[in-house]
Amino acid sequence: MTEGVPTGTDADVAAVTEANLALYTALEEGDLDALTDVWVSGADADDVHGAVCVHPGWPVLRGRASVLRSYALIMAHTDYIQFFLTDVEVEVLGDVALVTCTENILSSGDVETEGELGPLVGGRAVATNLFRRTSEGWRLWSHHGSPVLTSGGDDDGEGDDEG
Amino acid sequence: MTEGVPTGTDADVAAVTEANLALYTALEEGDLDALTDVWVSGADADDVHGAVCVHPGWPVLRGRASVLRSYALIMAHTDYIQFFLTDVEVEVLGDVALVTCTENILSSGDVETEGELGPLVGGRAVATNLFRRTSEGWRLWSHHGSPVLTSGGDDDGEGDDEG
Repeated sequence: MTEGVPTGTDADVAAVTEANLALYTALEEGDLDALTDVWVSGADADDVHGAVCVHPGWPVLRGRASVLRSYALIMAHTDYIQFFLTDVEVEVLGDVALVTCTENILSSGDVETEGELGPLVGGRAVATNLFRRTSEGWRLWSHHGSPVLTSGGDDDGEGDDEG
Repeated sequence: MTEGVPTGTDADVAAVTEANLALYTALEEGDLDALTDVWVSGADADDVHGAVCVHPGWPVLRGRASVLRSYALIMAHTDYIQFFLTDVEVEVLGDVALVTCTENILSSGDVETEGELGPLVGGRAVATNLFRRTSEGWRLWSHHGSPVLTSGGDDDGEGDDEG
């Protein structure tokens, strides 16, 4: 145990895990309303502690409006996407929770015939998701996703490779 | 002002900004000792709240040992690197601080003549750096860096593009 550091309860970890899943479910379903609920809002999302988001390969987006607009754009250009999360780790420190996970992504590629889905393509990204405890529950404060480009080594083993 | 959210003082923001700079200075100088001091350590770096790091294109590294080993590897393969940080934003929430910034990177490319530096190449990445307030000052809890691959639009303007 870490002395002096307020760790989260099992209930906290469960609630954060659920909030993290809600992000990906909203993306899979193309549900911008649900996605909106995932992010910090109202008095929790002002200039001081606003939403911050980095999509894979993108620059930093700051502020709830910019972030939600980016998701609307992504959803408009995504016919099908599914996330298989692996290596999910949740750490709660007081009113902040840090989640890291691997996003194994299955999505539709370029459309060959209008009205049909393109061929399914797989991809892998990693995400650092930072949540805040608010009066309405855990809400996403910061999302940073990036493509995994390296192929060497046993990536999955790295998480357990602590000395 | 956000009601009910403990924002940081100017001194907090200054201290976090300095801690963030120390990360990049340590990398520029190839100083692994200094880099070690930047990260959470000892009782602050156990399994529950250990160091978490994502280098651009890499999978998630967890635990102080894994993270520091990765930096040793990067330093061993880097003859010269310089960071010009832009768009730095610091948000302090209680004992946690979230820093986002753009890393404009100048580094030496492939060496043409042994003993000399290769041609300088530029690159751009964005980072989400999460710090914790410890008894020894602000220490890095999580670093996530990713390459900026998109070229379209006025990226620098995005930060101010809040509605």
